[in-house]
This record gives sequence, structure tokens and C-alpha cells, in this order.
Amino acid sequence: MSLHPSGSPVSPDLPTLRVAVLGAGTVGSEVLRLLSQQGGELAHRIGGRLEVIGVAVRDLARDRGEHVPAALLTEDATRLVQEADLVVEVMGGIEPARTLLLDAMAHGASVVTANKALLAQDGASLYEAADAHGVDLYFEAAVAGAIPLVRPVRESLAGDRIQRVLGIVNGTTNFILDAMTRTGASFEDALADAQQLGYAEADPTADVEGHDAAAKASILASLAFHSRVRLADVHCEGITAVSAQDITAAARMGRIIKLLSIVERIEEEGGERISARVYPALIPDHHPLASVSEAYNAVFIEAEAAGSLMFYGQGAGGAPTASAILGDVVSAARARVHGGVGPRESRYAELESIPLDELRSAFYISLTVQDRPGVLAEIAGTLSGYGISISTIHQELLDERGEAGEQARAHIGISTHRALESAMTASLDVFSSTATVLSIDSILRIEGE
Amino acid sequence: MSLHPSGSPVSPDLPTLRVAVLGAGTVGSEVLRLLSQQGGELAHRIGGRLEVIGVAVRDLARDRGEHVPAALLTEDATRLVQEADLVVEVMGGIEPARTLLLDAMAHGASVVTANKALLAQDGASLYEAADAHGVDLYFEAAVAGAIPLVRPVRESLAGDRIQRVLGIVNGTTNFILDAMTRTGASFEDALADAQQLGYAEADPTADVEGHDAAAKASILASLAFHSRVRLADVHCEGITAVSAQDITAAARMGRIIKLLSIVERIEEEGGERISARVYPALIPDHHPLASVSEAYNAVFIEAEAAGSLMFYGQGAGGAPTASAILGDVVSAARARVHGGVGPRESRYAELESIPLDELRSAFYISLTVQDRPGVLAEIAGTLSGYGISISTIHQELLDERGEAGEQARAHIGISTHRALESAMTASLDVFSSTATVLSIDSILRIEGE
Repeated sequence: MSLHPSGSPVSPDLPTLRVAVLGAGTVGSEVLRLLSQQGGELAHRIGGRLEVIGVAVRDLARDRGEHVPAALLTEDATRLVQEADLVVEVMGGIEPARTLLLDAMAHGASVVTANKALLAQDGASLYEAADAHGVDLYFEAAVAGAIPLVRPVRESLAGDRIQRVLGIVNGTTNFILDAMTRTGASFEDALADAQQLGYAEADPTADVEGHDAAAKASILASLAFHSRVRLADVHCEGITAVSAQDITAAARMGRIIKLLSIVERIEEEGGERISARVYPALIPDHHPLASVSEAYNAVFIEAEAAGSLMFYGQGAGGAPTASAILGDVVSAARARVHGGVGPRESRYAELESIPLDELRSAFYISLTVQDRPGVLAEIAGTLSGYGISISTIHQELLDERGEAGEQARAHIGISTHRALESAMTASLDVFSSTATVLSIDSILRIEGE
Repeated sequence: MSLHPSGSPVSPDLPTLRVAVLGAGTVGSEVLRLLSQQGGELAHRIGGRLEVIGVAVRDLARDRGEHVPAALLTEDATRLVQEADLVVEVMGGIEPARTLLLDAMAHGASVVTANKALLAQDGASLYEAADAHGVDLYFEAAVAGAIPLVRPVRESLAGDRIQRVLGIVNGTTNFILDAMTRTGASFEDALADAQQLGYAEADPTADVEGHDAAAKASILASLAFHSRVRLADVHCEGITAVSAQDITAAARMGRIIKLLSIVERIEEEGGERISARVYPALIPDHHPLASVSEAYNAVFIEAEAAGSLMFYGQGAGGAPTASAILGDVVSAARARVHGGVGPRESRYAELESIPLDELRSAFYISLTVQDRPGVLAEIAGTLSGYGISISTIHQELLDERGEAGEQARAHIGISTHRALESAMTASLDVFSSTATVLSIDSILRIEGE
């Protein structure tokens, strides 16, 4: 009976690969912990040893815990990447990460990065450098953290035709929306709680405005549709305008609100275009994504032959992100030892992005109106004039008399069938100059039907 | 605006790879459909063209639909595999599949197979042949159909340490148990329905006895734990003994019954062993696997760094299985064109399997007993004597008087805390010779707590 963690000893003849780690924060220190604790296992899996030759940090003096040996720390990242076979980038931000990775590849190193912002903004130049220098570029950790997603999309589904991806890929916003759904809290209160619990940063902009989810959508769309989808091609709305009333209204309709990253192939007469967009949407409460709670991530994929697939797990955090990075390190290292070429940028399809205006969506809109005869008919008439047909209406009297002794007010919640975005925009323009419509409170899409 | 399905044309200079398909059933014809319909896209993704040089079948005369050109059919599979660069095996069964694949590899072809039975029984010889001849062996479709699982386990999680996998990997049994849960039907009635709807075969043995799930468990355990786990190492119980009463009892405890393939790393003093087993188990009704309905598959993975992951999708069917196969075909073809070595057998850890007797599980047992004072105390005393502590008890009078005018009978359902399998076996032995215990009706494990 073998009671050893790993049975056969690691051969002393294995080649050694020099690994540089850029950044020693939460993720970096977990990467170093796994590299150290799993060293023997990794050597077996790779057929080579990994030797960490340095860890680049901005501040040498700061103590970084037991897994980050002080002797490995360096402030000279430029020199470090030039000496490495593999560079793991977990520092984040555009610069100096971009220059360091380009430099690393120019010096023959393969790169593993978790940097979604850099990939979304400048993925093309990274891919081109990898191609030009015959090295690999891996980034599983950049989308949905620990969840294997990049590899399944670009390898497992390489023989299929992906139609649509609906993803909950930002844990902070899912935590906030989940709290609002469970407790009835306002966005502001749920955000404050999330910040206190460490699920949201002091400056939550990148998360709550949807920028992080949009970067991931651009990466996913590029992979899924073999086209170059830039961050600027992604329509992005955050969750700051989602109100407790919206959550309640959604529940009344058997729906739940989630921030979705949606990438989609739109079949049209004579061809197809693609859409990548991020917004809070109402989904049916029995949809597999509806039960994704707290800070978890999940990605729902529809493919022509495979049908519906879902992937679920932790989208952030030191250890989960490090797990995804180490998987890439093993792949990149195996290619170093055994030869072969990792996945390259695939953009042969050159599909164009469809402008949001030309998309068709189902909507939920909520209006505050004067409570008097004919108002509902006026609203319905406007929508119908733009070809938008109503699915359900919910009307509620807000007060007997307005604040200044005016006409009483009512709240109207309307869900529609699928209609052109431009038609909805035009309707809202009309409402905003309609005297009986006091305010347009919400405009949300309905997805996953 | 590009409205073409694929933007840039396929270069005429690409190398051509000769593909042989063994079998033209439901899966084979879908493989051929995708190869034909996606040909241009696949050429882009591979950097090479795929040319189907033949489709081996047993009966040339049978019409196989539009996607299987009669001109490609051949009965001479042996010759076909010797002329191929890539062999796709979707014929199933041990022979002649085994001989043909070994022959294909000996002649330099890489192999993509969906044959779980062959892999579970004879995976070692296939791996050895791939190694010896420097070709690749891929089998994503052999476990959980369309769900990307093999690649995530052996590549994405290659830097992590998998602790446990709980999988619903047989669609037929999930369909039957789901129907029993929803309708209260007996196993026999639910099976008959499943057969009528095409979810179960006329001879359902391989599914309902757990053999199919056991083959998949052996494959998963081998990959997850870098050890050779043979089919004979997998403890296997099917669902034929699951009764409507068990389903009801589970529901009363907030649980649901699923046939699980479980592979697990058991940490022990001084080392570790592994367990691979298949049985119907009670899981909490809020567990992510509990909501997997109909014939869907789902696999729940716990890894040291990644935490909990779940993968969900269609585990069988022509198109979903073909999707998984085509993903492998693209990987194998890319390696042909660009060089490199696909994943090899990884069994360095050489972990031994722990016998079922030495495992600790929580149990649900159900007994029919004589309804008289002291019976419950006797049963509890027996369990306690073997170190098994009771978690909950449910007792129900079955009838005032037994059939032959004897003592009235009662039904007792007991759930226990975790205890040794051997202790439970010993207790059941005692019960079977205890006069007041009229029958042992069920013995099921409780998982996923």
C-alpha cells in the first residue's frame, strides 16, 4: 500500500524551467504557495521542474507572508522577465504589465496572465508578440477565476458552433444583487455591506459599473466567435441604478435580476454579426443562473451541437485564481518540455459587432405617471406605435395626492415582447416629453427565456 | 460589415489530414455532419483540412441518412485505420474496437474515442500504445458527453489538487430517479416510461446496474488522482433497489436520491488512498447536484485551491457527444500540424484504492420490524455497539395486525452519522438474524453534506 502523497520519485534528470512571478499580492502569494507545496506533483505532470527565479514587487520592504521568500523579491522586473522561461503576471493594470509581458515574450518566455483589463484593451498586441516570438500566451484566470472556461471554449468546443454565452462573471456585483434579493436592501446599503465584508473594494467603480464584466465579455466573445472583439465593442451598463423596487417587481414576475455578460451570434439574412454586452437583466427564477448566489460565478453556454452547458465556481480570490494560473503554467511548461504550440489568436471569422440599437430585446420598464384616465392608453399607444408589444402590465397607486397637492401618482411596470432597442429608445424619448409621465424609473432587459 | 459565416477564406496550401470514422450510428452520423458542415471553420481552427477517407460499418447496405455518404462506407475497418492520420472510434464495445485502435496507433494515427467501457477495461494498453508510437489518445466524449470534463480535470486543474468528484454521469438513471421523485412512481414504472421515451435501452442493465457510471468513475479517478484505477477497483451499486418509499423518506429529510459516481482522496495518517464508487445516495435538496433533472449530467469537483466547481450539460445523445469528439479531433489535428504531444497517462502517484469496508459513510437504513416495546432500543443498541451513532429516526405503524394475524408491523427509517462501512455491514448481519426485524428494506449512503 502506497501511503506517500506521490508514489514514484521525481527523476533528477528532468529539465528545469525558470519561472518569474510579477506581483506578490493575494493571488501572487497563492501562486507561490502552490508552486512550493505542489512542486513534486507538478514536476511529474510537466516532465520538468519549475524553479521560481524571482518575484517582482514594487516595495521590497513589505512583509508578504511565509509563501513569498524575501530572497526572491526584486524591484527589477525588467531584468527578471528577460531571464525567465515562463512569466506569471498577477500585478494587474495596463502598465508596466504590458511592457513587461511584451519584453518577456521578445526574450522567448511564455506568458501566463490573469490580467483581463490588459487583455481586453490590448490583447491583439500580446497575441501578435506571442506569434512573432513563437511563445505561448495563456489567460484562464482572466475570466471567471477558478472556473475552467477559456480552455473549454477554445479547445473543448473547438469543433462546435457557440451560439450564445450568458455569464455571471463578476462576484462583487452578484454578491450585491443577491443581498438585495434576499434582504430587500437598497443598492447603497448592499454595497456598503459588501465593502465591509471584503467583497467590494473601497472604490467599487470597476465592478459596479460593469467594466470588469465588460472586459471579460470582450475576451469571451473573441474566443467564442473567432473574431477580434475590443472592449469598445462591448455595450456596458452597471448595477448602480438597480433599485429595491426593481428587485421586487422582478420577483412578482417570477424573475431575478443578475448582472450578465452576454455574447451572442446574431444570424441575419445573408450572414451573421455578433453582440457583446453587459447589463443587469431579469432572468426566470428557474434558470440555472438564477440560483448562483453570493460571490460565485457561473457561465451558461449554448452551442449548436453540445446544447446547453453550465460552468460554476469561484470567480475570484487568491487560491481559486492561483489554481487557474497553475493549470496554465503546467500547459505552458509542458509545451516547453515536449514541444508544440499553445492556442493562438483565432480571428479568421472577422465577424462584426452589431450596434446595440439594432438588437432585439425584451424589456421591463417602470414609470411614475399621473394617476388619471387615459394615461395607460397613451403609454401603450406610444409603445405600439414603435412596434413594441406589451407582455404584462402592473399598475399601483403611489399616493392619493402628490406632494404639492397635485394629481395623485401611480407606478406602472411594463414587460414587453422582444423589440428593437432603437424602438425602445424612441419610446422613452417620447415618454420623457410626455406631461403625464412624471419619471422613467427603470429600463432593464429580460433574458434567458 | 462582414456577413459571411467565416471571414477570411481557407488557404489552399493547408496540409490535409486523413480521418477515419469507425461506426456510423447516432454519434457517428453527427460527427460526419459536423465535419461536413463545419469543414471551413475547422480548417481555420486547425491550420489544416480534415478529409474523411472512410466510415467503417458492419452493414454496407443500411441507409444511414444524408450525412453518411454511401461512397465512404467500408466494411474493411482494418485497412481503413492503417491509412488514417486520425481515427474517430464511435462503434462502442470492446472488440473489434480495441484491436482496431491499437492497430491504428501502431500505424501512426492519433485516436479519438468515446468508448468508456474500453477505456475503463483496457485504458492502460491504449495509453501504452499511444506512448510507444508517439501518437495522441483523446476521450472527452467518454465521460459526461458534451460536458468539457476530461480536459478541465487533466489540464485546467493540473496545478491543483483534486479532493473529491461527485458526478451524475448517467442520464438514463437520472431520468428514472427524477421521474420517481416528481411523480412518486416505482422504479419499474419509471424505467418502462424511460424506455418508451428512448431514454433507456431495451436491455437497461449497463445503465441501471451502474456499470456505465462505474466505467466513467474509473476514468475520472485515474485522471483526478494520477493513478491507475481499474474498473474492478470501483465499488458499484445500481438503482434497481431504490423504492418509492426511499424517495419519500429522503424527501422527508430534505434530501433527494441521485446515482452518484464518487471519486475521492482519503487522507490518512502517513499518506493517502483513493476511493472510486457508484451508488444511489441521498444528497441535500439544496446541493447543486440536486437540481439536475431529466437526463442531464453534472459533475461537482472539490479541489484544494479552486474550491467547489460544477459542470453541467447533456451527457449523451448524438450531437452533444459529437461536439465533444470534434473538440478532441481539433486538438489531435492541431498537434499533427503544429507539433506537440497531447496529454499522456499520468499515474506517477500510484495511489492505492481503499476497500469499501474501510470507508466511512453516513447511512440511511430502513427496516420493517415487529411493533412492540423494546424493538427500537434493541436496534439502537446494535448500532451503538458497532460505534454507529444515530442522527434521526422516523417510525411509522404499518398495520394494526400482520397478514397472518401476527404482531403488528412498523417501519423504521434511521439516518446515521458517519461510520465505517464494515460496522454497518456487521450491524445489518445482526439485524438479519434478529427476530423482531422482519426485513431490511433499504441501505443507502448520505453524501454531499
